Amino acid sequence: MKIKTMDDLFFGLLQDVYYAEKQLVRALPKLAKNSSNPDLQRAFTSHLEETKGHVQRLERTFEMIDKKPKGKKCDAILGIVAEGEEVMEECQDDRVCDAGLLAAAQAAEHYEIARYGTLCAWANQIGKTQIARLLHQTLDEEKKADDLLSSIAEREVNRAAEEAAT
Amino acid sequence: MKIKTMDDLFFGLLQDVYYAEKQLVRALPKLAKNSSNPDLQRAFTSHLEETKGHVQRLERTFEMIDKKPKGKKCDAILGIVAEGEEVMEECQDDRVCDAGLLAAAQAAEHYEIARYGTLCAWANQIGKTQIARLLHQTLDEEKKADDLLSSIAEREVNRAAEEAAT
Repeated sequence: MKIKTMDDLFFGLLQDVYYAEKQLVRALPKLAKNSSNPDLQRAFTSHLEETKGHVQRLERTFEMIDKKPKGKKCDAILGIVAEGEEVMEECQDDRVCDAGLLAAAQAAEHYEIARYGTLCAWANQIGKTQIARLLHQTLDEEKKADDLLSSIAEREVNRAAEEAAT
Repeated sequence: MKIKTMDDLFFGLLQDVYYAEKQLVRALPKLAKNSSNPDLQRAFTSHLEETKGHVQRLERTFEMIDKKPKGKKCDAILGIVAEGEEVMEECQDDRVCDAGLLAAAQAAEHYEIARYGTLCAWANQIGKTQIARLLHQTLDEEKKADDLLSSIAEREVNRAAEEAAT
């Protein structure tokens, strides 16, 4: 596909993020299932519900630009998801595994924070302010999810993981 | 490799980030060469110098934990770098290309912000406060680089890209 305008750029990134969100809808239940800390499990489960809402917002966005929802393979998110799977396979202690899964989830959150930040800026620039507002809600939720993970890491998960070594 | 302790987790992520930084040392000159906005070019060139410093800090970190510096393939950063290359190939207008390259660079920054945030938290948890302080310097530089890119996008690059469409 040739990219001629900023609308083309926006559409391409929208497809990338749509693919990424759908991957996360598949990955989050595995993260919840394989984590042992109850707060971390709850964070994954509630973020799964939010993520399903993010997919719907993206589908509304496709509609608002008269396009069919379609994902475009995003190797970055596949790499991040694969890292989470590697942690599950290789960690021999549940508490260490929790710390690794939490970190992989934060990498996914940051990927989305970057991409939604760009989508919002581009949508505003091309005059699609309603879309910018819609996607900003998702951006705010991704930032909150990342902050929650940081606080669970600091309060509980990292300390427990370190105790596993002793 | 089996992961038994938080030290193992830390070492694994250190190798991932080392690989990622080295990829960026290779990618940033291409980004600078293929961007047309002078401020964006300068941002890429000066971040290349910073990135070389980040590689050196990681090498000091390996030394401080008595390990040889060694990278571990990081598919996430390869995916982000590939996206930048796709933008260079497919954009037919320099101004639109600038916006796409800037966005790909911000995805790379956010990947690093997530990973250095985790490395610092883990280093503190396992009592390696000197390493945490060292890597926090890099974390701060990545955040500043991301902020600078946001301001160049808003002030110049996105507007210019949108004009390309008209």
